[in-house]
Amino acid sequence: MKIEVVKNILDANDQIAYLNREAFDSLDVIAINIMASPGAGKTSLILKTAELLNLPIAVIEGDVASTIDSEKIASKGISVVQINTGGTCHLDAPMVKEALKRIKLEGIKFLFIENVGNLICPASFELGEHLKVAVSSVPEGDDKPYKYPGLFSKVSAVVLNKIDILPYIDFNMEYFQNGIKALNPKAQIFPLSCKTGEGLDKWIKWLESEAVNR
Amino acid sequence: MKIEVVKNILDANDQIAYLNREAFDSLDVIAINIMASPGAGKTSLILKTAELLNLPIAVIEGDVASTIDSEKIASKGISVVQINTGGTCHLDAPMVKEALKRIKLEGIKFLFIENVGNLICPASFELGEHLKVAVSSVPEGDDKPYKYPGLFSKVSAVVLNKIDILPYIDFNMEYFQNGIKALNPKAQIFPLSCKTGEGLDKWIKWLESEAVNR
Repeated sequence: MKIEVVKNILDANDQIAYLNREAFDSLDVIAINIMASPGAGKTSLILKTAELLNLPIAVIEGDVASTIDSEKIASKGISVVQINTGGTCHLDAPMVKEALKRIKLEGIKFLFIENVGNLICPASFELGEHLKVAVSSVPEGDDKPYKYPGLFSKVSAVVLNKIDILPYIDFNMEYFQNGIKALNPKAQIFPLSCKTGEGLDKWIKWLESEAVNR
Repeated sequence: MKIEVVKNILDANDQIAYLNREAFDSLDVIAINIMASPGAGKTSLILKTAELLNLPIAVIEGDVASTIDSEKIASKGISVVQINTGGTCHLDAPMVKEALKRIKLEGIKFLFIENVGNLICPASFELGEHLKVAVSSVPEGDDKPYKYPGLFSKVSAVVLNKIDILPYIDFNMEYFQNGIKALNPKAQIFPLSCKTGEGLDKWIKWLESEAVNR
């Protein structure tokens, strides 16, 4: 009975995700669903990407509460819409559909959809995005792919943020990368630091190649 | 309709949480629900506490997948039961009830229930615990109380782990603490480092006082 309810909710979500995808495609916008733990650096990654990527972007910002992140993004002159989910632990396709009414996508190449900080629930909900990206970070530890396989198995790329902190943390890079490869051999892995800028060039090149080839 | 379903699930959960509490009280065990983001250091805090606290403890370990954390705890000779939730983003009272069948609590003073790594969903489910504790960590950033008010408003104490990394991270301690005080003026705040041991003495003293006064 409970399972049936969940299945119906997911089916309804997928139908709206399909409409969102059509909206993105009609405008030649690539939508990227960014998922991560709280504090892994989703907003920092979006801000750095906006700075370095020579293509126009827009942002949908998902949070349980507050407008802290959308204010940071708006202060850089980037078009942004905030979704506050109330208590809900993930974005869903209807929320994104509502947000799309409040954002201009004409002329935009990438729409970054920053999901709620959570490694579990966001993985179950399609938003209509073209790409899913996980952001992990060094201080969270090297075991995250093993503990949250649902999310890491579904993404096209994993950004490992905060590599500037590697000297001060016990973090086995090989163990982390092997965890991802075992689940998801095709996923790109980008170790980088949004603080120092190290490694961001490869991430930016990957986005540029997606903009051309997709 | 959907709200009604959620309400019924929560009611059923609370009834079992009440039974769990009775089981704890009959054995004079204090149960602590430890909630945090992935990688904040819940397991490290439990391990350090076991080392420093002169009272017998047991652990219920909640994860979506894997037995990484329960193996770490068992390797120290601590009594531990693992709950793997499958895809579920939080523990609930029935899961804890099942786990209680597999753990001996006679002679135990503190039962630490390590919830699934998530700052949202665990806050909505009573497990029968006496105390809720949030573990935050410096690299997650100083804005977590503002972004996840549901959880931070409900806890008796906030542990701020990884203070050894403060020199390498932009973290405003006053902003963090003010966020907690605004939501939850009575919450104890314990800045500490499970790596260096700094600050753990105050946390241990608080547990000892709870053991005496509760």
